[in-house]
Amino acid sequence: MSIEKKLFRDGPYADLFCQGVRVGDTLYMAGQVGTDAAGVAPEDLVAQMKNAYTHVSAVLSEYGATIDNIVDETWFVTDIDDTMAKVGDLFMARAEIYGKKPEVSQTLVQVAGLVDAAYKIEIKCIACL
Amino acid sequence: MSIEKKLFRDGPYADLFCQGVRVGDTLYMAGQVGTDAAGVAPEDLVAQMKNAYTHVSAVLSEYGATIDNIVDETWFVTDIDDTMAKVGDLFMARAEIYGKKPEVSQTLVQVAGLVDAAYKIEIKCIACL
Amino acid sequence: MSIEKKLFRDGPYADLFCQGVRVGDTLYMAGQVGTDAAGVAPEDLVAQMKNAYTHVSAVLSEYGATIDNIVDETWFVTDIDDTMAKVGDLFMARAEIYGKKPEVSQTLVQVAGLVDAAYKIEIKCIACL
Repeated sequence: MSIEKKLFRDGPYADLFCQGVRVGDTLYMAGQVGTDAAGVAPEDLVAQMKNAYTHVSAVLSEYGATIDNIVDETWFVTDIDDTMAKVGDLFMARAEIYGKKPEVSQTLVQVAGLVDAAYKIEIKCIACL
Repeated sequence: MSIEKKLFRDGPYADLFCQGVRVGDTLYMAGQVGTDAAGVAPEDLVAQMKNAYTHVSAVLSEYGATIDNIVDETWFVTDIDDTMAKVGDLFMARAEIYGKKPEVSQTLVQVAGLVDAAYKIEIKCIACL
Repeated sequence: MSIEKKLFRDGPYADLFCQGVRVGDTLYMAGQVGTDAAGVAPEDLVAQMKNAYTHVSAVLSEYGATIDNIVDETWFVTDIDDTMAKVGDLFMARAEIYGKKPEVSQTLVQVAGLVDAAYKIEIKCIACL
């Protein structure tokens, strides 16, 4: 391999996968869900979305990076109707997290389920460092 | 950030995300759906697929690139049975779009839904410029 | 295009897409399913998962690479309950395939379906060469 990896492991699955893998200028991140600091997913989708970005930011910070470094994000949601019903609140909250017009491409799809029935969103990001 | 981004914003969500983000030689693109020039998704899956590539091509053209620059694509479809029933027509139409054997990797999965119930396919591409 | 592609085509869909596309140090791979050497998907999810990695390894080997080169993987499964019920067996078997703590980020979502109703998992990987 010509490019050195920088790995970040954290959480209960640290033996199974990394939260982030840096190769060159690219940072691949594991999908992040909406659990809070106690590991609990709140009922509200907007709250889960904000928590997911908190996790994303924590991974980025391990690489000296911030939310500004994200270049691509995929949102996997479990209820597209609920998502679109709250789309104004969701994107307003996300705009506050980014603090400016996000410089990212985005894809949003409804999946059939996430690893825990309480999870309503998982966000997978790629960042450029 | 060591690599300069080149952003392309378009459409009703231009404040929320970019249609394309170039970092170095890599172009990340937002998932594209099958709406026509009037913003309407036709009933037919093949027609939606062709429209999605029209949008992909429009993004690529902002970077001086073409469909030939795509290296990876993911198809998110809402009805895999319908997709497989029309797989011949779909891939014949796609072959005409590429104009040669596509030089891309592909992943095809059925999702539970897209952002509008009329959408039957969303195509997410990565290109190399 | 500034970066040369190296393509690997194989299987019944070789005219439609590549199993792997290398651009620079990055290898994009098509999603791999759990068929065995006879093209049949076994009933058991764990067996399908192992077969999928066999296919992934075969693609990697075309580029002189191994499973160690994977940096990011997405698992698309059709039954998250079955997946979580077997999560210990799944990840033990995967650990044996990697032969060490995997140096990859991972995302796991339940999709509504894969291209054949017998398929229970599709694994999409990105590798760094």
